Amino acid sequence: MKDVTIVGSGLIGSLLAIYLAKRGYKVEVFERNQDLRKVPSKRGKSINITLCDRGLKALDAAGLGDIVRQISVPVYGRLIHREDRQLEHQPYGNNQEALYSVSRNQLNKTLLDYAEKNFPIDFHFNEECIGLDLSSTTITFKNSRSGSILHRKTNRIIGADGAYSAVRQRLQQRSRFDYSQHYAAHANKELSIPASAKGAWTREKNVLHIWPRGQHMLISFPNIDGSITCTLHLPFEGEFSFDAIKTEQDLKHMFVTMFPDAMQEMPDLVQDYFANPCIPMVTVRCSPWTFQDKVALIGDAAHAMWPSYGQGANSGFEDCAFFDQCVEKYGDNWLATFREYEEQRRPNAEAMGMLSEQHFIEIRDLVGNPEFQLRKKIERKLNRMYPTRYIPLYSLIAFTHIPYADALRIEQQQRLIVDELIQIKGIAEKIDDLEIEIRIHQLMRCRDIELQNSAPKLLQSVK
Amino acid sequence: MKDVTIVGSGLIGSLLAIYLAKRGYKVEVFERNQDLRKVPSKRGKSINITLCDRGLKALDAAGLGDIVRQISVPVYGRLIHREDRQLEHQPYGNNQEALYSVSRNQLNKTLLDYAEKNFPIDFHFNEECIGLDLSSTTITFKNSRSGSILHRKTNRIIGADGAYSAVRQRLQQRSRFDYSQHYAAHANKELSIPASAKGAWTREKNVLHIWPRGQHMLISFPNIDGSITCTLHLPFEGEFSFDAIKTEQDLKHMFVTMFPDAMQEMPDLVQDYFANPCIPMVTVRCSPWTFQDKVALIGDAAHAMWPSYGQGANSGFEDCAFFDQCVEKYGDNWLATFREYEEQRRPNAEAMGMLSEQHFIEIRDLVGNPEFQLRKKIERKLNRMYPTRYIPLYSLIAFTHIPYADALRIEQQQRLIVDELIQIKGIAEKIDDLEIEIRIHQLMRCRDIELQNSAPKLLQSVK
Repeated sequence: MKDVTIVGSGLIGSLLAIYLAKRGYKVEVFERNQDLRKVPSKRGKSINITLCDRGLKALDAAGLGDIVRQISVPVYGRLIHREDRQLEHQPYGNNQEALYSVSRNQLNKTLLDYAEKNFPIDFHFNEECIGLDLSSTTITFKNSRSGSILHRKTNRIIGADGAYSAVRQRLQQRSRFDYSQHYAAHANKELSIPASAKGAWTREKNVLHIWPRGQHMLISFPNIDGSITCTLHLPFEGEFSFDAIKTEQDLKHMFVTMFPDAMQEMPDLVQDYFANPCIPMVTVRCSPWTFQDKVALIGDAAHAMWPSYGQGANSGFEDCAFFDQCVEKYGDNWLATFREYEEQRRPNAEAMGMLSEQHFIEIRDLVGNPEFQLRKKIERKLNRMYPTRYIPLYSLIAFTHIPYADALRIEQQQRLIVDELIQIKGIAEKIDDLEIEIRIHQLMRCRDIELQNSAPKLLQSVK
Repeated sequence: MKDVTIVGSGLIGSLLAIYLAKRGYKVEVFERNQDLRKVPSKRGKSINITLCDRGLKALDAAGLGDIVRQISVPVYGRLIHREDRQLEHQPYGNNQEALYSVSRNQLNKTLLDYAEKNFPIDFHFNEECIGLDLSSTTITFKNSRSGSILHRKTNRIIGADGAYSAVRQRLQQRSRFDYSQHYAAHANKELSIPASAKGAWTREKNVLHIWPRGQHMLISFPNIDGSITCTLHLPFEGEFSFDAIKTEQDLKHMFVTMFPDAMQEMPDLVQDYFANPCIPMVTVRCSPWTFQDKVALIGDAAHAMWPSYGQGANSGFEDCAFFDQCVEKYGDNWLATFREYEEQRRPNAEAMGMLSEQHFIEIRDLVGNPEFQLRKKIERKLNRMYPTRYIPLYSLIAFTHIPYADALRIEQQQRLIVDELIQIKGIAEKIDDLEIEIRIHQLMRCRDIELQNSAPKLLQSVK
C-alpha cells in the first residue's frame, strides 16, 4: 500500500519524491537519463529557472527553500536593451519584488542530493519507461546501458517525466483522453557569457537583461558564479531564423545586426550556437490527469507551458505542494487525493498555459512598445494607490500565491480599468493629478462592485 | 514518380484512390481490416452516412454519383418525436432540399467495387501500418493473419486511415506538430429496426426521426431495403448512461421511459445493444497535414469531427475532390499540391469541427426548445424573402458548396439579424406583416454593407 513509483527525476519528480518520502511512503524513482550529478554538465539543456514565491514556498515546505536561495541570484526587474542602445529599467514591482535565477542543472542536483541524503528513496537512472499496463499497474522500463527489461508491479505511478511524458502517452491510448500539444513558431537556444565578462552592462547582475527585437530576442540570466546564461529566441523560419543560420558568418551577421553589445561578451558564441540544441516551446493540455487511484501526471507531463512566463517549474513545484496537502488530508485514500489534486490544479494549469502563450507575444513584441510602457506606468500608479488591491497580472502570477485561474479572472477586471485610463489624453504626464486619482477611485469602486456580484471569493484576494 | 501509397480503404481512401488512378497514378491501398466485402456485414460499425451536395458532387466528379444515389434514401427534413408524443415536421429548407441516407458499409463496398472494376488499383487488406520512416519514405505494415512484415519504399504516402490514424501518429512524433483530440461526454451505439416494422411512424421514410430527450437522443436513418438504422446517443456517465445500463432491465426501463414508440419496432434491441460497440465522438485537429512532398493526411485522419452535423464523410469527399483539382493544376509538383490542399482545406476543417461540436448541443438540447423553433421560423421567413441571399447555417453547410469557413463567417452576420428580429414582441404571429418585412429589408441592407466592408468576397456567395 505504501509504495509509490515516480517516473522522472527532474525538478518535479525529485521534489515530489521528497514530499512523499517525508510522509512515510516507500518511493522509487525511475529516470531515463543518466544521473546528471555523475556527468559533466551537459551544456544547452540547463536553461535557467526563475523561481518566484510560488516555487520557493513549495521548496520551503519541503525544507529546501534556503538551500536553493543560496544557489540563486535575485533579480528585481528587467533591463531592456533597446535598439537605439538606450537602457531602460523596468522593476517588477514597487516593493523590491524579486525572482530568483538559478541554473536548472544545479537546482536539480541540489534536489537529488537532498533527497538521497535525507530519505531512503531509490533512484534508478538510465531506465526508460517503454510500457504501462493500466489494468495491473505494471510499468516496464528498458535500461539504456544493459538493454535489460524491468517489469515493476506497483500500486501507484506518478508521471513526472516532462513535456514528452511516456506515462501520458500510455494514458493517451485510452479512449476519451482529451489532449493537445501546441508549438510556437519560435524556439530557444542556450548561449553563455563567462564570469570573466568585462562589459559595462554585465556588471548589472540583479536584473534580467532583455534585447527585444520583434521576432527575435535575447535574454540573460545571472548565475551565482558570476557567469551569465543567455537564451536566444528565434523563429524557426525566415530571415535570421534557426533554419536560415547555417554558417558562422550567418550567426555573426545576425548578432552584429541585433545584439552587438551582447556579442562582445560571448567568446564561445559560435561553439555554443552550433553545439547546443534548439529547444521548441510546447503547450500541453490534457484531461484527465489521473487514472483511478493508480496513475497521475504532474508538472510538465500534465501541463507543459511555454517558458515565457517562467512558470513551468514554479507551477510544477506548486503541484507538488498541493498534492502533498491532499495526501495529508486524505491519508491512504489516493482516489480522494487524485480527485482533489486534479480538480484544483487542472484549471490553474490551463489558465497558466494560456497566459504563457499570451505573455510570449507581449515580451517579444511589446516590451519596447510605447503603449505597453504606458500601460505599465498606469498599473504602477494603480498599485501605488492600492498596494494590496490592484496587483498587476505579472505580480499576481510571480509575487502572490493566488491560484492562476483566479489571477486570470482578476486581470480581466483590471484590464478594463487600464483600458479606460489609457484613453485619457495626456495621461502619461498627469497621472499623479487629483482629477486622475478621483477617476481611479471611481473605477476601482466599480470593479469591486463587479467582483462582489460575480465572484465575491475573488474580492477577498484583492482586498 | 507516379506511385502513390494510400493507407486506409475506408470511404475517403477508396475515393481518393479512384481520383488518383483516373489521373494515371499507380495506386496501392493498404487497409488494416479485412476486405469488408468478404465478411458478413459487421453490425454496429456501419452507422449511416447522410450525404449532402458536397459529398455527392465529389462522387459525381469521380463518376460515382448516380451509383450512390441508387443505394440512398433521400430525407427532406427532421421529424421530431416530442416527449408528449406529438410529432413535429422540420423540413430542411423551403425547396425540397434533401440529404441522402446510406449505410456506411454499403457505400464503402460500392466504392471498392467501382475502384477495382475500373482501375488497376492494388488493394492489400489485413495490413496494419506499424511504422513510417519519413527520411526514406518507407512505410511498414504487419499482416494481421500471417504476421509477416512488409517494408514499402514509396514516393508518396497519403494517410486516409481515420480518426485514430497510424500515419498521423508517426507525424506527431516529429517536433512542432500541433495536435489535439477532444472527446464528447456522450457516445453513440447503433441499433436497428427491421424492414418488417409495422408502426405508424415507421412508414414515414423520407425523414430523419429524432427523439430529443435532453442528454439522451435517438435518431433513425432509412435504408433502401426498408430497414432503419438507429443511433442511440447517451452520456458515458450518470443515470441512463452507457456506464449505468448493465442489464436487459436497465435498458428496457430507459426505452420505456424515453423512447417507447421506437422500442416497439425494435425486436433486436437487447441483442443489438449488448453486442454493438459504443462509439466515442472525437474532434481531431492537427497541423501540419503534410510533410514535404511525401506525406499527407486526408479525411478523418486530418480532421475527425463529431458526427452531429453529418459532415464527416462529406468533408472527406470534398477533400478528395479539392485534392484532385490541385493534382490537375500542378501535375507532378506534389509540393505545390500538398501546400494548396492544406492551405485551403485546413481552415475549412477547423470551422466544421467547431460547428459540429456546437450543433451537437443544438440538436440535443434545443430541437424541442421553443426559442430554437422560433429562430428556425424566422430563418425560413428570411430565406423565403431572400432565397439566394439569406441561407440558414444548416443549409449553407448541407445544401451549398460555400467553404465551411466562409459559411461560418456568413452565419456570424446572419445571427445578428435573427437576434434583432426575435426581440420584436409577437414576432411569431406577425412574421408576415409588412412592418416586419420592412425591418427585414433594412437589416439585410445593413448586413450587405457590413459584408461589403469586411469581406466583399463573401458577399458574392450570398448575392
